[in-house]
Amino acid sequence: MSEKPAANARGPYAKGVARRQEILDRAIEVFAERGSDRTSLRAIAQEVGVTHAALTHYFGSLEELLVEVYRESERRGDRLPVPPGETPLDMVKHWAESNRQVAGLVQLYSTLVAAALEEGHPAARDFATERFARVRNDLAERVVRNQQDGRLRADVDPHAVAALVIAASDGLQTQWLLDPDAPQDAALSLLETLLAAPQPDAR
Amino acid sequence: MSEKPAANARGPYAKGVARRQEILDRAIEVFAERGSDRTSLRAIAQEVGVTHAALTHYFGSLEELLVEVYRESERRGDRLPVPPGETPLDMVKHWAESNRQVAGLVQLYSTLVAAALEEGHPAARDFATERFARVRNDLAERVVRNQQDGRLRADVDPHAVAALVIAASDGLQTQWLLDPDAPQDAALSLLETLLAAPQPDAR
Repeated sequence: MSEKPAANARGPYAKGVARRQEILDRAIEVFAERGSDRTSLRAIAQEVGVTHAALTHYFGSLEELLVEVYRESERRGDRLPVPPGETPLDMVKHWAESNRQVAGLVQLYSTLVAAALEEGHPAARDFATERFARVRNDLAERVVRNQQDGRLRADVDPHAVAALVIAASDGLQTQWLLDPDAPQDAALSLLETLLAAPQPDAR
Repeated sequence: MSEKPAANARGPYAKGVARRQEILDRAIEVFAERGSDRTSLRAIAQEVGVTHAALTHYFGSLEELLVEVYRESERRGDRLPVPPGETPLDMVKHWAESNRQVAGLVQLYSTLVAAALEEGHPAARDFATERFARVRNDLAERVVRNQQDGRLRADVDPHAVAALVIAASDGLQTQWLLDPDAPQDAALSLLETLLAAPQPDAR
């Protein structure tokens, strides 16, 4: 209609973007503090301090808002980058440590994954499917590098290692959240030991 | 009030027990066919063919009904017993195989675990916490036997192995449900190989 691009930095569109971001910022605070208990969009709107209509306008559905909260939180570097030489297990231990600071986001992750497995939650399903595939690929590339530099055993399939490490990370996190006596650290260390390249000096 | 015990096989109480069981039987069929999509008790009542009031009377809440559906399904031996000599990985592969027959119950499991991690779902939390602790103990005992009979490496902590195997089982199942190309079998076989006792003849 106009020569201005839709994403121009002024005008109603830009205001909308800024407002959406404000709401998202506040929603992230709410979830980090209170957990993601799958409640109504109306209850969340109240907590965030906007109308139900505004949330629907900017995010479409509760599910899409939850996905955006998680994505934005990840983008902000709640998970700091791990140096490329570190193994997948180093990454997982790092995740486990940082996740303990933000229980709400861990709950949100498990809620989104559970929703993804149910019928009728396309946004959660797309999010979880894409995320698992991407993290598996990233970790598999890391495994290949670790095998080349002699940190991980060379006789294991990188994609199987990646899937196993992610599963161990997710599953042990769940067990630990429900029961602090569950041996999360011991089990991650065990997997690390099992995957380590044999030491030339070892008997 | 009466000399009859509360659980007498006749009278209104017995009728109530039978009716509750009928509803539970039907609910299990519904979930096995359609998945556990976390919906309202009202919608489930309609599907099962009872009133909302009846469901509330017999099960209290949607959450408690879901827990009972899962427990009853397990009791019925959807998961056949595995011989004691089998390793935890044999069990997990067996679970993975039988779970592929009942996608609805797998969804129900992940829904209950996700609810357990949220606030305000005491029935799901009790179910998941008790179940993880019990399965960890069962598998740890199995690991000890497998270590004694030389099937599993002796230098690993049985409780850490148990937690790791459960996490791998749950997490790989999730990845596979979202993406049939996720290497569930390869990753379980990898864990099996890593945990196997070294063969005396191996180089």
